[in-house]
Order: sequence, then C-alpha cells, then structure tokens
Amino acid sequence: MKPLHALLTESRRIEDDDLRQLFLDARTHNGWLDKPVPDTVLREIYDIAKFGPTSMNTQPMRLLFLRTAAAKERLRPHLAPANVDKTMAAPVTAIVGHDLAFHEHLPWLFPHHPNAKGMFEGKLPLIEMTAFRNGSLQGAYLIIAARALGLDCGPMSGFDNTGVDAEFFAGTQVKSNFLCNLGYGDHSKIFARSPRFDFASVCTLL
Amino acid sequence: MKPLHALLTESRRIEDDDLRQLFLDARTHNGWLDKPVPDTVLREIYDIAKFGPTSMNTQPMRLLFLRTAAAKERLRPHLAPANVDKTMAAPVTAIVGHDLAFHEHLPWLFPHHPNAKGMFEGKLPLIEMTAFRNGSLQGAYLIIAARALGLDCGPMSGFDNTGVDAEFFAGTQVKSNFLCNLGYGDHSKIFARSPRFDFASVCTLL
Repeated sequence: MKPLHALLTESRRIEDDDLRQLFLDARTHNGWLDKPVPDTVLREIYDIAKFGPTSMNTQPMRLLFLRTAAAKERLRPHLAPANVDKTMAAPVTAIVGHDLAFHEHLPWLFPHHPNAKGMFEGKLPLIEMTAFRNGSLQGAYLIIAARALGLDCGPMSGFDNTGVDAEFFAGTQVKSNFLCNLGYGDHSKIFARSPRFDFASVCTLL
Repeated sequence: MKPLHALLTESRRIEDDDLRQLFLDARTHNGWLDKPVPDTVLREIYDIAKFGPTSMNTQPMRLLFLRTAAAKERLRPHLAPANVDKTMAAPVTAIVGHDLAFHEHLPWLFPHHPNAKGMFEGKLPLIEMTAFRNGSLQGAYLIIAARALGLDCGPMSGFDNTGVDAEFFAGTQVKSNFLCNLGYGDHSKIFARSPRFDFASVCTLL
C-alpha cells in the first residue's frame, strides 16, 4: 500500500477492470446466489461510503439492513408487487433513509461554522431539500462502495414510503428514500442493458 | 483486460489504493493547481457516470461544464460569497441539474414498461421527487467517476438555485441541483478531515 503522501500526489486513472466492476459492466440485479453477506461486510460498506462528501458534512443518511426473515416480512406489505420476490430472496435489503433532524449534530460534524445548526432550525423546506439531496448522494456512495467490495446491488424506488416510515421509523424524524437489495447476483437473471444518453444529449460545454 | 465472462464471475474487493483514491483519502478541494482539464476527460467522466443505476432508467441529470471565463462570470453573481474565489479559480465548474421533463424520454429509455411515461404525466410532485433523487444519485456517480480518473472535486450547495436556473436553464424544465468544481487539487489548501458517524450511530442490523 502506498504511503499517504504518495497517494496524494499520484492520483491516476484506476484500472479498466475496476471501472468495469464499479460502473461500466455493473448491473442492477434481480436474482441472487445462495451466498450470505456477513455483517462485517455491511459494516465495511458503510465505513467506505461514509467518506463521500455531503454539504456541510451533514451526513443525513440513516440505514437499516434487513437480514432476517422477520425483518423482511415487516417490509413485504409495503413493496410494489414487482419488487416482492426479488427482495424476499435477497440476502440483505437496505432501507436508505435520511434524518430530518440531521442539523442537531452539526456542532460536532461541522465545527468550521459556529451557527451551522441555526441555519436550518425552523426551516423545514431547507431541511427536507438538504436531507434528500445529501441522503441520495450517500445512497449512491453506498451502491458504489458495495460494488467495490465485490457485491451486487438492486436499488428500487417501488414501495410505499409512508408505510415503510410508519413501520420502521415511527417516533423518529427519519424518512425512507429508496431500497437497495445487496448480495451476490445471479448473472443469468439480469435484463438486457437499457440505453444511456450520450454526452451530447445531456451535457453542454460552456 | 479481462474478458466480460471472467469479470462477471470474478468481482472482488478492489485494491486498497483505489478505495483510498475514491473514498477513504479523497477530500473536497478548495484550491486548484494550474493544470487544465481537457474536454476529453469531461466526456469520459460522463461516459463512466452514465452507467450508474437510476430508477426506471430515468437518467434525469443534465450537466453544464463551465470552462471559460465568460461562462464563470455568468455564474459568479449567484454564488455564496465563500464559494466565489475557489469556483472562479477551478479549471471547470459543473452545474448538476435535473430535467423535470425526463419522462418524455421513457419510451426509449425504459422499453420494458409500455406506460412508463404515463405514470408521471401531470404528477408534478412525483416528477420532482424522482428527478431530484435520481439526479442526485447521478451527481454522486459523477463525483466518484471524476476521482476514478484522477481528478479532484469540490461539490457545493451554496448558491442561488433560482438565479442559476434563470441564467442557464431559461426556456427549459431543467433545475439546478448542486455545483461541483473539477480539476487537480492543491493539497496544501484542504481543511482537516471532519468527523464521520460510526456504523452504530446511523446503521441498524435487523
């Protein structure tokens, strides 16, 4: 492993095989091999993803990792029908949420700014926007971190957020954002790759 | 480079040095070396990030890459004061936006579902939530893709979204989400690393 000072001056293009694992060939998975995901791996995914940047270091993401049949059954009634079977079969389903009370932690998380907490107090639209944006960024870091450890992901928006919040986040200010199945994917069960916009269709150089 | 069939069955933990470059040692940058970012690199960043997953393959992110002094001057009056100097000095500033008309493209992007477009038509809250969530996920993929190519990032929320939308997205349904300076960072100008929540503080195993 390189020393830190070398890494800091030597960032370079990562290897093609790694780009393929993280992005180019990675796919959303619908079927899962019978191979468990140890809790130690879930901890390491978080301990990688947590270093991704958030605005004012807010870190609003909150995670539930459902690994047991009992936990999955609590989720089942809130899933869109097309997402039930694959979610029940996945070794782990992460509920990615964000905490609308995130600013309570800013005196510790963002000491550079003495009134960071006060910037948000009583401003629910700003709180919701900040939590949703940064919680979503952190959710993406989670997906890439899982792939970096060799796992496959199946993220989903098709569920009843209100029902999930009542079942899993009652008594808190955490709101569900999206779900992400985690495990080792069955590559025989992925769909054909859907198209992507090319650069010129969605990017402009100014 | 490995053949595809090998990669599909051989996903493994990527190297520690790569995890450090992408997440563990990567930092938000405030100062920039005098080293330009070629347009070819911006194109490659997008061509990596575009493969990250979005709900129903919606791909709502829209990008403006500001590389010229004239383009930067259009942005300047809308920046929070603390973000002006570093943004003016960055080789490139990306405006990460999302298109509230994203669903118009779903007959091509998501052919699995014949009525995908109709699910969104006339439902502005659903459109806004989907565009914001998935545009934010794509913005995170952009940050990680840039780091994968050896660039440094400086993402920011401190600007006047309404002003930026009027200046850059008039006549469209694109809304700005966040900004991200891109370049080769001056490592002498980063702040001390701010704290991160540990696993037990924000994650629950169920």
